[in-house]
Amino acid sequence: MARERRRRRRRRDSGTGPGAPDGPAQLAPRQVRNRFPPISVFDPDELDKLHIASLRVLEEVGMDFLHPEALDILARGGAEVDRETCRVRLDRGLVEQAISTAPAEFALGSRNPERRLVFGGNAVNFGSVASAPYCSDLDGGRRAGSFDDFCNLLRLVQSLNIVHLSSGYPVEPQDLPPETRHLDCIRAFVTLTDKPYHAYSLGRTRMLDAIELTKIARGLDDDGLMREPSLFSVVNTSSPLRLDGPMIEGVIELARRNQPVAITPFTLSGAMSPVTLAGALVQQNAEALAGIAFVQMVNPGAPVIYGGFTSNVDMRSGSPAFGTPEYTRAALAGGQLARRYDLPYRSSNVNAANAVDAQAAYESEMSLWGAVMGHANLVMHGAGWMEGGLTASFEKLVMDADLLQMMAETMAPITVDEASLGLDTIAEVGPGGHFFGTAHTLERYQTAFYEPLVSDWRNYEAWQEAGAPDTARRARDLVKRLLAGYETPPLDPGIREALDDFVERRKREGGAQAA
Amino acid sequence: MARERRRRRRRRDSGTGPGAPDGPAQLAPRQVRNRFPPISVFDPDELDKLHIASLRVLEEVGMDFLHPEALDILARGGAEVDRETCRVRLDRGLVEQAISTAPAEFALGSRNPERRLVFGGNAVNFGSVASAPYCSDLDGGRRAGSFDDFCNLLRLVQSLNIVHLSSGYPVEPQDLPPETRHLDCIRAFVTLTDKPYHAYSLGRTRMLDAIELTKIARGLDDDGLMREPSLFSVVNTSSPLRLDGPMIEGVIELARRNQPVAITPFTLSGAMSPVTLAGALVQQNAEALAGIAFVQMVNPGAPVIYGGFTSNVDMRSGSPAFGTPEYTRAALAGGQLARRYDLPYRSSNVNAANAVDAQAAYESEMSLWGAVMGHANLVMHGAGWMEGGLTASFEKLVMDADLLQMMAETMAPITVDEASLGLDTIAEVGPGGHFFGTAHTLERYQTAFYEPLVSDWRNYEAWQEAGAPDTARRARDLVKRLLAGYETPPLDPGIREALDDFVERRKREGGAQAA
Repeated sequence: MARERRRRRRRRDSGTGPGAPDGPAQLAPRQVRNRFPPISVFDPDELDKLHIASLRVLEEVGMDFLHPEALDILARGGAEVDRETCRVRLDRGLVEQAISTAPAEFALGSRNPERRLVFGGNAVNFGSVASAPYCSDLDGGRRAGSFDDFCNLLRLVQSLNIVHLSSGYPVEPQDLPPETRHLDCIRAFVTLTDKPYHAYSLGRTRMLDAIELTKIARGLDDDGLMREPSLFSVVNTSSPLRLDGPMIEGVIELARRNQPVAITPFTLSGAMSPVTLAGALVQQNAEALAGIAFVQMVNPGAPVIYGGFTSNVDMRSGSPAFGTPEYTRAALAGGQLARRYDLPYRSSNVNAANAVDAQAAYESEMSLWGAVMGHANLVMHGAGWMEGGLTASFEKLVMDADLLQMMAETMAPITVDEASLGLDTIAEVGPGGHFFGTAHTLERYQTAFYEPLVSDWRNYEAWQEAGAPDTARRARDLVKRLLAGYETPPLDPGIREALDDFVERRKREGGAQAA
Repeated sequence: MARERRRRRRRRDSGTGPGAPDGPAQLAPRQVRNRFPPISVFDPDELDKLHIASLRVLEEVGMDFLHPEALDILARGGAEVDRETCRVRLDRGLVEQAISTAPAEFALGSRNPERRLVFGGNAVNFGSVASAPYCSDLDGGRRAGSFDDFCNLLRLVQSLNIVHLSSGYPVEPQDLPPETRHLDCIRAFVTLTDKPYHAYSLGRTRMLDAIELTKIARGLDDDGLMREPSLFSVVNTSSPLRLDGPMIEGVIELARRNQPVAITPFTLSGAMSPVTLAGALVQQNAEALAGIAFVQMVNPGAPVIYGGFTSNVDMRSGSPAFGTPEYTRAALAGGQLARRYDLPYRSSNVNAANAVDAQAAYESEMSLWGAVMGHANLVMHGAGWMEGGLTASFEKLVMDADLLQMMAETMAPITVDEASLGLDTIAEVGPGGHFFGTAHTLERYQTAFYEPLVSDWRNYEAWQEAGAPDTARRARDLVKRLLAGYETPPLDPGIREALDDFVERRKREGGAQAA
C-alpha cells in the first residue's frame, strides 16, 4: 500500500513541479506572496510611543560599537562618539535621516536565476535552520554537528522547493577547523544547492572569502556584484545595546558591496532586555535602528532587513522560550515596527522542544503565524530548528517543509469564478446526493487540494496496521527518500574548478588564521 | 525537582485564579476577547458573488426540510413548499428579510453566573471536544466511549478555565441505553460542571427533557428560560441541502424558547459539496442561511449562530482531512460570511491525526488560527478532538488547553505605558549588562510571562534525565493531577434531588423510547 501510494505520488509529481525524482509531490517553486493584510498589535499612538522611546534610548543611553572603523563612520555620519568607551549616541533626527535611504524592497540572487528572491512588500521567503551546534535524527540520535551532516542537511534544503534559501550553516560542522571552515561551507552552499545563501559576519577575512567565492560562483566582477546582491548576513547585536567587532567588519564589507544585511537584536525579555514586552521591543527597535542607520552610513541605499527576535525566558530557570504568546506578539509587533520604517522584515520559525513532538509543532506554528501575519519577508530557521536553536533535526526539517507549504497554500487566493462557484454542479447533484462522481469533481480532483508531505490521513486501523508511525517516524522515511533521490544541481566545470582552486589556495594560506 | 516545580506552581496558582487546588497555574477564568481585526479571504466583490450564488441555490435548487411541521412554518413564512418531496425554495428577498431578525450578539448562561458567555462581536468561547464515539489515553488505549470516560472528560472540562463550555458529549457513552442516555448526560453536565452545555437535537422528546433539566438546574420557569438562554444545540445539515427531521424538532423546541442554535453545514469539499472551495462555501452558505431563516420563522429574534465546517477529503481515499490549507481558508471565509450577515460565528479546533503527535498539534494550530482570525465566537471541539472526530483524547484535551491559553494570551494587549516602556531600566542596565537582577525585573518576573501547562523548556540534558517525556506523556501526568484534584462544583441539594427525581421518573417512563 505504501509503495502504491509512493508510485501515485511520483506520478503526480511530474505535474506539480520539480522535486527529487523519487521524492514526494511538492508545491512548485515559487515566490510566496502573502495576500492577507498584516495583523497589528499596537494602535498608532502606542506605536509612536515605542518609536519615540527607542529613539530616546539611542539619544540618551547610546549603543556600543566595538570597532574603531565603525566609530569613524558613525562620527563622520554625525553621531556623538566616545572613542574610549566605544559609546555612540545618535540623536533622533540623525537616525530618522539615516534609515530613510534604506530600500523598501530588494532582490537576492544565486547562480540559478530561477531561485531569485524578492524581500519586501508581501513577499515571504523561508530559510533553513541555521547555526545549530548539534544535529539529530531518529536513527543516529543527537550529536555534535559534522560536515557530513551539514552536507546532508543542505541536500534536503536543495530538495525541498519551499525552503527558499540557506540562512546560515544548518549545523555547525564541528569536525572542520574553525579557520578554514567557512571555505568548505560556502563552497558547499554553492555546489550542493543553487539557492541563495548566508555568510557569517565573523571578521573581515571570512567575509571577503565568502564574497570571492560568490563572485566566482556567479561569474560576477565587483561591479556585477554591486548590481546583483548575491549573499547576505544576519548580524545579531549583543544585547543590550552592543555590536561586536567581528560583526561590524562583516557589515561593513557587505554594505559596501550592496549585499543585504539583516540586523537582528537578540532581545530575550527578562535577560538581555526588560521583562516587559513593550520594554523589550523598545530595546529591539533601538538596536535595530542603530544597526540599520550604521549600514546606511557605510553605503546609503544598501539593502538591509529589520530583524526581530524578541522572546522571553522561563523566569524560573532562565531558559529561553520560543513560540510563546509573548514571542508571537513580539513577532507581530516587530513587523509593525518594520512597516513603520518601510523596511523588509525578518522573523523566525522557532521552538524550545527537545523532541519532534506536539510541542515542537505547536510552538513552531505559533512562531510561523506570528512571522507570516507580521508580514516577515525572511523567515529564518524556517525548517529544522529544535531546542531553542541548539539542534538541527533532519525530521523536523522535512516536517517543517510541510508546515511551510501549508502556510503558503493558506495564503493563496480562493478562485471565485463561475466554474468554481459550482452552481451547475450543486443543481445537478441536488439535495441528498453526493459529489464524488460528477464531471465537476472528476475534472479537478487530482489537483484540487493540498497534498501533504508527512501528514497521515489514513484511518486508525490502517495506520495501526502500518505500525502506527507517528509524524517523526514518517518524517524519517521522507528524509531517506529525499536524500536517496537528491541530485546535485548542474554547475559549469570551470566554475567548480575555480571554486576549488580558491578554497585550496586560501587553505594553504591558513584561512582566517591571521584574522 | 518535579515536585519542587509543582509546589512552586501551586503557590503561583493562588495568585492567578481558581483551578483545581493541586492543579497547575492557569489563566484566570475570563471572557476571551480577540482584539485583532479578522483576516478576510475575499474582496467585497468576491464576497458578493458568493452571497448571490448561495441565494440562487436556495431560489433555484432549494433545500429539503424533512419534517411536516417545518414545511408548515416555511410555507407560512413565505417559502415555496413542495410537500411531497419536502423541497423548499426560498427567494432571495425572503431569506434576507428572515435572517435580518437574528441578533448579532447574545449571552448563554449556566447555573454559575460567573460562567456566563457572550457570543458575538470579538468574544471567543472555547468548547470541549464533542460527539466522539471512541476515547483514548496513553494508559488505557483507544476504546469505545463509556459513561465513566464521559464523566472524567467532563471533570477535565470543569477543571480547565480556558474550556468555557461543553459543546456536546465529549465522548458517546456507549454503555448507556440510547433511549435514556441523554438524561444521564444532561444531569452529568449540570452536576459535574457549572459551565454552559449543549443538548443534541435528536428528536423532540430528548430536547424537551434537556430543557426541563436545565430549568430545574437554573431554577427557572418558562418565562425565565425565555429571558436567559441556558442551553444550546449544534445542528448539522445533511449536506447537500437537507435538514433531517430529528434535527428540525430540536431546532423548533429551542428556537421557540429563545435558546441558541448553531446551524452548521458539514460541507466536505469533494464529497458532500463541490470540489472547489468557492463551490463548497456557496453550498455551506446556502444551507446555513436556510437554517437560520427557518429559526427566525419559528421565532423572530431567537439567537442563532452561523456555523462553518467546510473541509476537504483526501481525494485518494475519501478520508476527511482537517487543519489543511483548504480547511483554514474556509474557516476564515466562513467568518467573513457570518460578518456579512452580522451573525455570531462558529468554527472548530480539528485534526485528522491518529496520535497526540506533531501532526495533531500542527493541524490543530492551523484550525485554531483559522477560527480565531476568522473571529469565531464559538470554537467547537476546542479541546480533545482527534482522528477527524472519531476519538476524544484525554491527553489531547489538556494539551489543547495549553494551545487555547496561548491563543488567549496572544490576543491580549501589550501594555504600553511609561513603566512598561522601561526607559529607566534600559538606562540603568546600559550596554553590555543584563536585566536579571534589576528592580524592574524583580517586581514583575513572577507574572510577566505565560506559564504553560504541558510545554517543557528544560534543557536537553535535564529532559533526558527526567526520562525524555514527550508532550503526550507530560499531558498524561497533567490529566492525572487534574482528575485527582477535581472538585465537584457546589449544588443546592434540593436542586440535585429534583434533577434525580426527574431523571428517575423519565427513565421509568422509558425515556425517548416512544419518540
